[in-house]
Amino acid sequence: MNKQIDVNRISLNQITTENWSLEEAIEGCVRHEIPAISIWRHKIAEFGLKKSKNLIESANLEVSSLCRGGMFPALTSSERQDRIDDNKRAIEEAAELGSKVLVLVCGPAPNKNLQESRKWVKEGIESIIPFAEQYGVKLGIEPLHPMYTADRSVITTLGEANTLQESLGSKQVGVIVDVFHVWWDPFLYEEIERAKGNILGFHVSDWKVPLPDIFKGRSMMGDGVIDIPRIRKAVDENGYSDAVEVEVINQEIWDMPGDETLKLMKRRFVEYV
Amino acid sequence: MNKQIDVNRISLNQITTENWSLEEAIEGCVRHEIPAISIWRHKIAEFGLKKSKNLIESANLEVSSLCRGGMFPALTSSERQDRIDDNKRAIEEAAELGSKVLVLVCGPAPNKNLQESRKWVKEGIESIIPFAEQYGVKLGIEPLHPMYTADRSVITTLGEANTLQESLGSKQVGVIVDVFHVWWDPFLYEEIERAKGNILGFHVSDWKVPLPDIFKGRSMMGDGVIDIPRIRKAVDENGYSDAVEVEVINQEIWDMPGDETLKLMKRRFVEYV
Repeated sequence: MNKQIDVNRISLNQITTENWSLEEAIEGCVRHEIPAISIWRHKIAEFGLKKSKNLIESANLEVSSLCRGGMFPALTSSERQDRIDDNKRAIEEAAELGSKVLVLVCGPAPNKNLQESRKWVKEGIESIIPFAEQYGVKLGIEPLHPMYTADRSVITTLGEANTLQESLGSKQVGVIVDVFHVWWDPFLYEEIERAKGNILGFHVSDWKVPLPDIFKGRSMMGDGVIDIPRIRKAVDENGYSDAVEVEVINQEIWDMPGDETLKLMKRRFVEYV
Repeated sequence: MNKQIDVNRISLNQITTENWSLEEAIEGCVRHEIPAISIWRHKIAEFGLKKSKNLIESANLEVSSLCRGGMFPALTSSERQDRIDDNKRAIEEAAELGSKVLVLVCGPAPNKNLQESRKWVKEGIESIIPFAEQYGVKLGIEPLHPMYTADRSVITTLGEANTLQESLGSKQVGVIVDVFHVWWDPFLYEEIERAKGNILGFHVSDWKVPLPDIFKGRSMMGDGVIDIPRIRKAVDENGYSDAVEVEVINQEIWDMPGDETLKLMKRRFVEYV
């Protein structure tokens, strides 16, 4: 085993404490000395952007990312324009909250033609790049596990995300590596190398057998089969040294008292990341 | 839409009628004029090999494949040898039943090292090739959807299966294309072309949203998002003209009277394959 991870790289991805409001999550981070948080837009909506910003600043928390933009494919050009407009609002929110990165969950296909939707994803990202540059927000393409192709994202592997990033030809765009989505991939380590310099985020959780659910299928690090340290080291070695978000979507975890969740995730982070 | 599929290419993969015995499934195929069947080994076990063979021959059914060999990775060499021995028994059974193909579900990793298990899969297949040649049974590597990596197969994409097939360098080995496992893949059509001449089987079902279950997650053709005709035509254009197996693993379908299932699958086959 190589070098252990620095516990100060931990970030709470807010969906891990889905039952907490943004205020509760921020207070929890302070109590448990978690220096960073990734914020979800539906949680901002509860307080409004201004109050959310004040809460984060008062707590002196780093915002590791904003979740999420994307969802580009749609059948009509006016619907696709609506999605683009919503991504612009997300970029503004990210900038306002001091988040350097907007995570892109690219969206499913509205029909059976996946290739066409992949083209719409590319066009969508292309059209928001100037806006993202203006606001100083990077766009992180997150490839999702292929089991989410039909309902969340047609971008399914790190290889595909890298190809998309390269084809866009902009340093404003990078990729997000989430172990739950990519651990199975036979080309994972080659693709992490290929992403060198473009990795904008790293998310951890685990794949437990049997999987408890499809959407709420993630488990706490250490409860599953993913070789998280190997992936983390590969990401580190390829130039990523920022926050590591703990993103666990799991009903049992959601049902725990939030303070217990934060204690558990910190313990597991040191031991299993 | 191009050329419609010939209904006589239909084959009942026996797991679609999991609640039927082999005898009932064979009688069902005869009643519904389904000319071929893919047989599962646990169903043969109920009657014994000899009686199973007699039932199939009396009904004059083609056996499109035997399910399944594989499951190669294991921690000790003696366990791996046991798996290889079991694969040899499967080859004997396939030959005895007149099946030209043994489907290989390659197996999950017994630890967190996927690459090591992929090596064991290769070694396992390598060691049974001479035996398969002797019995005239082809070995079909079936890549499974990445959501089954942890519990069923470390071989996850058609690209990976093709690379494995090529590295083995034997015409005794080919690949199986199952739409449920591969439909999401951005490189699917390139990989089907690459598999030209080595495609040993083609399986159909559908991906319904939301997925009803992980293992029992498949739906009847037409109920989901997969562009089955496009994949079928690509497979046809790359040299596959044999049976098309309907393989639906789904509790609701299992709970239907078998005759209803067979009627439904024939109707859907003509309309959606």
